[in-house]
Amino acid sequence: MLNFDFYSPARIVFGRGTEKEIGALLKPHASKVLLHYGGGSIKKSGLYDTVTASLKKAGIAFTELGGVQPNPRLTLVHEGIALCKREGVELILAVGGGSVIDSAKAIAMGVYYDGDIWDIYESGDSVSRALPVATVLTIPAAGSEASGDTVISNEAEELKYGYSSAHLRPLLSVMNPELFFTLPKEQLGYGVADIMSHVFERYFTNTTHTDLTDGLCETVLKTVIKNAPLALANMSDYDAWSEIGFAGMVAHNGLVGMGRDEDWACHMMEHELSAIYDIAHGAGLAVLTPAWMKYVYRDNISMFVQFAVNVMGVKGSYREPEAIILEGIERLSAFFRSLGLPSTLAELGIDDSKLELMAKKATNIHFGEESPIGGLKKLFWQDALAIYRLAR
Amino acid sequence: MLNFDFYSPARIVFGRGTEKEIGALLKPHASKVLLHYGGGSIKKSGLYDTVTASLKKAGIAFTELGGVQPNPRLTLVHEGIALCKREGVELILAVGGGSVIDSAKAIAMGVYYDGDIWDIYESGDSVSRALPVATVLTIPAAGSEASGDTVISNEAEELKYGYSSAHLRPLLSVMNPELFFTLPKEQLGYGVADIMSHVFERYFTNTTHTDLTDGLCETVLKTVIKNAPLALANMSDYDAWSEIGFAGMVAHNGLVGMGRDEDWACHMMEHELSAIYDIAHGAGLAVLTPAWMKYVYRDNISMFVQFAVNVMGVKGSYREPEAIILEGIERLSAFFRSLGLPSTLAELGIDDSKLELMAKKATNIHFGEESPIGGLKKLFWQDALAIYRLAR
Repeated sequence: MLNFDFYSPARIVFGRGTEKEIGALLKPHASKVLLHYGGGSIKKSGLYDTVTASLKKAGIAFTELGGVQPNPRLTLVHEGIALCKREGVELILAVGGGSVIDSAKAIAMGVYYDGDIWDIYESGDSVSRALPVATVLTIPAAGSEASGDTVISNEAEELKYGYSSAHLRPLLSVMNPELFFTLPKEQLGYGVADIMSHVFERYFTNTTHTDLTDGLCETVLKTVIKNAPLALANMSDYDAWSEIGFAGMVAHNGLVGMGRDEDWACHMMEHELSAIYDIAHGAGLAVLTPAWMKYVYRDNISMFVQFAVNVMGVKGSYREPEAIILEGIERLSAFFRSLGLPSTLAELGIDDSKLELMAKKATNIHFGEESPIGGLKKLFWQDALAIYRLAR
Repeated sequence: MLNFDFYSPARIVFGRGTEKEIGALLKPHASKVLLHYGGGSIKKSGLYDTVTASLKKAGIAFTELGGVQPNPRLTLVHEGIALCKREGVELILAVGGGSVIDSAKAIAMGVYYDGDIWDIYESGDSVSRALPVATVLTIPAAGSEASGDTVISNEAEELKYGYSSAHLRPLLSVMNPELFFTLPKEQLGYGVADIMSHVFERYFTNTTHTDLTDGLCETVLKTVIKNAPLALANMSDYDAWSEIGFAGMVAHNGLVGMGRDEDWACHMMEHELSAIYDIAHGAGLAVLTPAWMKYVYRDNISMFVQFAVNVMGVKGSYREPEAIILEGIERLSAFFRSLGLPSTLAELGIDDSKLELMAKKATNIHFGEESPIGGLKKLFWQDALAIYRLAR
């Protein structure tokens, strides 16, 4: 186990009816908020009315900015920053999924940053403050409701970069699984792939003596694998959505990766896909993850045997570890397919024309000095290219 | 799963050498602290010198109060409150185990409370503020380094009461498993019994649809069961102590009980034992827990089968669930014995003379109206008495 620093102060208010409490929950923290949301589904569902009524009841003034798209755009972030400055906003309330929350975080730090906030995503320089962010979660997937992470797309330059800061941890997040009932079925698959990937990026490691976090990771994965089919079969299954939603938070609040070298190669490679092709992050992860596994497993046979046995339930002879591993990967692929997720880049409409470009962007050699990605196995641009090709 | 509100903001700085950073970590938060500790083992071990050097280097002034005893006493708490008020202390740094931290929390809220702080333990009334508390943990057991809980003994009245408040969550806790190497071997057993009990009190529930937290609980338990014998065999096993220390924090920071009805009967009954007989909390729990299990398991056969199979590794016919359960309880008892823990009240020097008194105190009927304890099975005073008798 490695030394670690765990700090995850986001308060999670979970369960039926909790979105009605948002005004009372925010009252001690702000008198004027920016209500930030996506394409308007919250108006159709009635959630917009519930949230604004709760704010009004608590005497909290609000201004609003809708229109966040999946793979949230820098342009709208710029608009939000100007709006917050103009209106004297004290807190940003993101009502939506990971894209809305990530956009809110970008705005939150942009309010206190003198230059273009994209500089921070590009440089990775630290910020010293941000407006507080709160969330009403409508899609369990990104884990952004408890994390200090944000990912923004610079659509003009076809770039998608992540950024992390303790200042970006939401103050509080409200999670009512009933809000997930009306999601399109494909969102369930995307969300599950993202949640599982957040665990995989931490689980697959060369760090040893990690009994506790191994078990925590496996628990989150098994919980999602058990409950996703139940939610798919009945999109109003409160219990199944509760497990998926709670698991999504635990997958990404930092705990399950503490003391471990983390990986993150799949996320880096997926960001290149969605930056250029504007696909769903979860769909890209579902395609890339099994390919990545097939490419890297020989570097840590024991780790992948443990995954196949403990998570995917493979039984077999330990004297044939590769057979166990390949069966585990196949079961994962089959699980993703059962949720309607794609298995190949071709299914995503992605041809070979930009694989090399993406491999070189992911490893930075496209921009300058090569910076290999991944923790379990260091991947150079040729490795990334090989994985993209395996995923065709 | 039930609705829940999860808030666990304590920052955990974990690993080798981290105690040397305490001054730098506290510098943004306080310029004058109370250094609170126990019977002086930190002076023998050199930890006192390390911590005070770190405070001095950071320019943090300190006053000190040692002498915290196991089952920390109200008298010393009163002394600490007066000292903090007199000296203008801004933060309390607890260097020790759960007793020192619990004492620090009592002082922290006592500084802002006008009456006798014992009133708060007795009434359960909420407090509106407390001094911040930080910790350097020397015994993994109580989980007080991340929890909002404190337990204090009123030695004059032979009472031991707990109290909880979000204001009592430590600001930050430093945990270097190397500091556990010099613990007496019996402390390992006491700590493990306490950690496991913190999970049991949350794990054993009638709440259904708790896949995620079931698995988190089982992971913490299995991690401790695997690593405690390794630490016992080699008290300088850093990896084993790391797992136990991390598990002790996760066991009691609140996460593994979220969305579940909790139990806490064993803790309530144990507090009566240590209030009168001043025994180690972990020793009392090791004696009472198997007795409690034998008394209550018929009320939730499935829950106890899951425990026996998933945690204790029992294999057997599911058509004979009671045999599986009893084997699971026996394995737990054997595990406790293997760590040198007692199995009976007699081994603790406790005879029958006060069993009825303790049963009546635990359920409050001794003081007035009966208030049954426990979540999985409601226990009245006769039930508590029966469990004490089973533990003889």
